Amino acid sequence: MNYSSTFIPTLREVPADAVIASHRLMFRAGMIRKLANGLFAYLPLGLRAFRKVEQIVREEMDAIGALEMRPPVVQPGEVWKESGRWDAMGEAMLRVKNRLENDFVITPTAEEAFTAIVRDELSSYRQLPLSLYQINTKYRDEIRPRYGVMRGREFVMKDAYSWHCDDESLDKTYQAMGRAYRKIFKRCGLSVIPVKADSGAMGGSGSEEFMVESEIGDNTLILCKKCDNAANVEKAGCAPDFTARSPEEAVSAAANTPPFEKVDTPNVKTIDELCAFLKSTSANFIKTLIYRAVNVELDLSNAPGCTNLEPKNQIPEAFFAVTIRGDLDVNEVKLAALVKAAEVELAGDRDVLRLTNAPVGFAGPVGLNSLPIIVDHSVTGMNDGVTGALAKDLHYRHVAYGRDFTGWMTGDIRTVKAGDVCPLCGGELYEKKGNELGHIFKLGYKYTRSMQVSYLDENGKSQIPTMGSYGIGVDRTLASVIEEHHDEAGIIWPVSVAPYHVIIVPIKYEGEVKTASDRLAAGFEKAGIEVLLDDRSERPGVKFNDADLTGIPWRVVVGDKGLSLPQPQVEIKHRRDKDNRMVELDRAVEDVTSKIREELDIYA
Amino acid sequence: MNYSSTFIPTLREVPADAVIASHRLMFRAGMIRKLANGLFAYLPLGLRAFRKVEQIVREEMDAIGALEMRPPVVQPGEVWKESGRWDAMGEAMLRVKNRLENDFVITPTAEEAFTAIVRDELSSYRQLPLSLYQINTKYRDEIRPRYGVMRGREFVMKDAYSWHCDDESLDKTYQAMGRAYRKIFKRCGLSVIPVKADSGAMGGSGSEEFMVESEIGDNTLILCKKCDNAANVEKAGCAPDFTARSPEEAVSAAANTPPFEKVDTPNVKTIDELCAFLKSTSANFIKTLIYRAVNVELDLSNAPGCTNLEPKNQIPEAFFAVTIRGDLDVNEVKLAALVKAAEVELAGDRDVLRLTNAPVGFAGPVGLNSLPIIVDHSVTGMNDGVTGALAKDLHYRHVAYGRDFTGWMTGDIRTVKAGDVCPLCGGELYEKKGNELGHIFKLGYKYTRSMQVSYLDENGKSQIPTMGSYGIGVDRTLASVIEEHHDEAGIIWPVSVAPYHVIIVPIKYEGEVKTASDRLAAGFEKAGIEVLLDDRSERPGVKFNDADLTGIPWRVVVGDKGLSLPQPQVEIKHRRDKDNRMVELDRAVEDVTSKIREELDIYA
Repeated sequence: MNYSSTFIPTLREVPADAVIASHRLMFRAGMIRKLANGLFAYLPLGLRAFRKVEQIVREEMDAIGALEMRPPVVQPGEVWKESGRWDAMGEAMLRVKNRLENDFVITPTAEEAFTAIVRDELSSYRQLPLSLYQINTKYRDEIRPRYGVMRGREFVMKDAYSWHCDDESLDKTYQAMGRAYRKIFKRCGLSVIPVKADSGAMGGSGSEEFMVESEIGDNTLILCKKCDNAANVEKAGCAPDFTARSPEEAVSAAANTPPFEKVDTPNVKTIDELCAFLKSTSANFIKTLIYRAVNVELDLSNAPGCTNLEPKNQIPEAFFAVTIRGDLDVNEVKLAALVKAAEVELAGDRDVLRLTNAPVGFAGPVGLNSLPIIVDHSVTGMNDGVTGALAKDLHYRHVAYGRDFTGWMTGDIRTVKAGDVCPLCGGELYEKKGNELGHIFKLGYKYTRSMQVSYLDENGKSQIPTMGSYGIGVDRTLASVIEEHHDEAGIIWPVSVAPYHVIIVPIKYEGEVKTASDRLAAGFEKAGIEVLLDDRSERPGVKFNDADLTGIPWRVVVGDKGLSLPQPQVEIKHRRDKDNRMVELDRAVEDVTSKIREELDIYA
Repeated sequence: MNYSSTFIPTLREVPADAVIASHRLMFRAGMIRKLANGLFAYLPLGLRAFRKVEQIVREEMDAIGALEMRPPVVQPGEVWKESGRWDAMGEAMLRVKNRLENDFVITPTAEEAFTAIVRDELSSYRQLPLSLYQINTKYRDEIRPRYGVMRGREFVMKDAYSWHCDDESLDKTYQAMGRAYRKIFKRCGLSVIPVKADSGAMGGSGSEEFMVESEIGDNTLILCKKCDNAANVEKAGCAPDFTARSPEEAVSAAANTPPFEKVDTPNVKTIDELCAFLKSTSANFIKTLIYRAVNVELDLSNAPGCTNLEPKNQIPEAFFAVTIRGDLDVNEVKLAALVKAAEVELAGDRDVLRLTNAPVGFAGPVGLNSLPIIVDHSVTGMNDGVTGALAKDLHYRHVAYGRDFTGWMTGDIRTVKAGDVCPLCGGELYEKKGNELGHIFKLGYKYTRSMQVSYLDENGKSQIPTMGSYGIGVDRTLASVIEEHHDEAGIIWPVSVAPYHVIIVPIKYEGEVKTASDRLAAGFEKAGIEVLLDDRSERPGVKFNDADLTGIPWRVVVGDKGLSLPQPQVEIKHRRDKDNRMVELDRAVEDVTSKIREELDIYA
């Protein structure tokens, strides 16, 4: 392809809103343009690189037997109502009514569509397992789209779904997907951090996220300095820095603690003020927070204050008192998982007053029986703590877990932070920001049950299949490649996803130089190498800058000087190298082609 | 690929709403499923065929230097407002507001998006000509989607756009696109009818539609029995079956016509009743119809009754009296083009009364000066006609064009019909229903002007580029292939778009037969042939039926009987043939592969 016949509008300026390297460079290299906030057009150069990533994803999906299909992008609201997500999805799902007033969704994900299709075709266990995928347009109505295609509104996702007779079969596909994902990211030249969520029992609610480090990442990762433990802070655990005790053990541990007593704490509002007032540290406080939980699936029939909640199987609104050591924070994702709630949030002032008989700041577990108390493990180690006393300006001290209160449930709901101890090896944990590129997830029966999918097993009995879902953001993967592979001058493509393998730069595209350049281009094309010939009448400096900016791995410079040598030569340079070397004109195609093939093998 | 590892849910039953062959067969062959009215999912087999068509389109676009890019599917309403089509597009364009109340469009076509992008990048004449295209999802909110993917709501279209310095350059790209389209349809095995619209001056508003014959087509085509003249009835012309005359010539032609006179025609309402009453035929009537025209760009400043119309350059509403020979019909598309109106429709009763002083049915050109009269060419040949007399129950007879009235404008606004005479060769014209698969169109300055696109010419002067647009419906092309290539038993794929080239059918997939089948499959794969191996434990009859239904071009049957011959043999049959032939097992791959390659060459 001749440069003058394509459309690569490179820019010297950086758009004001482009704060990360991939956004800046995709604009400057003429890969993308913005049509509206969060809506981008891939220009020809960008689309070439995009297609490479897409094709790698496709090949690895095909390799594990997943079957590509394609549902529509505009999907009927009906299937989302069946699964219950029409209400659950929130405003990020773009909904539209057509001229007949029917509800539609510009699909953000496709569990429902795939499940609806499989439901109609599935009859026998012999059809399972079944893995289907698409690589297709998605839309998420981000309020603040940012960072170019890294967080756009419209994007392309590879989403796969699988259906199985049993957990073992699901796990097999889940593992194969995990291996395929590792392969995909390796082929793209990406260093990903696989982050395992709570593994649970085999076939349970396993999930794994594939993260790349990013200063602007949505996720906080907890990593270990010593081992390869990696977790999303939302689910990260750590080794306890306390002695966890059962209520009975706690009673003995409190043998020397004086009985708890009231302390007047007038005008003391924050934990810090309380510490100063009582000459204590926050680690000595039993912090008590009142949480409101939505759509709770936990059985609360025997929980204090909950006997009247309806319906029994999913309670729309329930309140919990949550106790945790004063120097720690509650991880709301872990809390929500513990009480099987769709969401949890701090209760409003009025609910706190109603439930604790005291304003915010004076809740405490002693004598609190208007709602269930959740005790973080850290509190089970506390035998001489300070808590609110359920009355304004009043606290208790010498409070001991087990002796003075127990709680309805205990669990790990602490937010792990840098400096905590690795639960696997005892090493020190640290934090990193990360962006999620992929996610594999054992869904279980969520969709197959709500959407009434069934098949007949070997005994002719009707069964519900279990299900997995597996996603990769294609745009985000492409942008992450640039984040990991660039320098001041531009992109440095791994050859596996480079829009072209070679760029030929004639110093001046005329006479001998033109003839030699054309011959080289034809030679590369014949060898199956993707070559761009910069035939523009620009100064060499402009051409070199554009070659660096667009990041094409191999550059071949053709000039009068080299050609006039007794054995005519051209200059060869890899984008990541500083130095170039001269190669005989007649051997240049063979030389570079073999290097490209070697490099492609590394990424294969 | 083994049949049991893929997902081809074939059906014996036909969905009730599937009335055309492609719809029926795509369902039955497990190529598509319906998710909602007009919204289809391509299953793996369907997607494979779809991709073949898509790839043929892509190759032919690339071959003429068009550059693929990809704007988003959800596009900002803003650019549609700039071009003026936000209002013009009507309800078939699906509009949506996001959570921030911004307007978006699920794009039905992309003149605006491409033009907006090019506008920002275009500076110099040296960047032109430029041709860009996408193959991407489109949405049209059809009220009654029908016929499967032939007229769905969501579909994939290849749409290309080009920008040029001058008409000559536009024409060159337009011609290249036309050639590429012919190639694309040939490669898909489709017989298309290229339908030229009014060619106009070079660089004028040329357009060409690529039609396939279809009983359920949206378009009526006028074709010649003798030559290859083909036109959309909307624009078709025919040779005159009358003597066209200037007003002066008409006056002499009417030399022997008595002066016109009133005839009482009480209670006579239709032309038929009038014919009976006057003992005449409809060809003797000068039919006069009052039309309302919207957004008229024709200069009406000197037209009767129009002097007060504002604004001068585009009149929102104007009325015309249209005269035509009584046995002919007015073609409203041709009429709208003649008066440069966005749309024309018959005027309402009240407007007819106001403008003619008579109820509907008694309009006539004699003495009518409240509005401009448009005279179809056919009327210029009439020197003794009957017309309404602008009063209830009253007609004139012996009316002669030129002598008794002239009209403000004459033109060809007649609807051509079967039996009319070909304007090119004098042959007889006939009608066919057709579906449009592609359309190439010289847009001119419509978008570049309204969206203010400009570039600097060689002299540094700002100029507006001219533009073309070129579309192909990919789904509809695929469905049309099936319409043209099927029989009672199923699809008969042209090898160029077949989802697989070969299907191997073992009579019973075990023992020797299994070994031989596996070896054949491996052999085909090694030769680069796409092969499906029916490894299911179904009866041979079921497998043969599915092979016929899915239409895979070559079938290789492997059975004990053939394998037990001294020279083991398998049975080979092409889907379109009745008879099969035995081929030595060892030569089967080579034999079929060479046949496939020959066939592929035919379609290349």
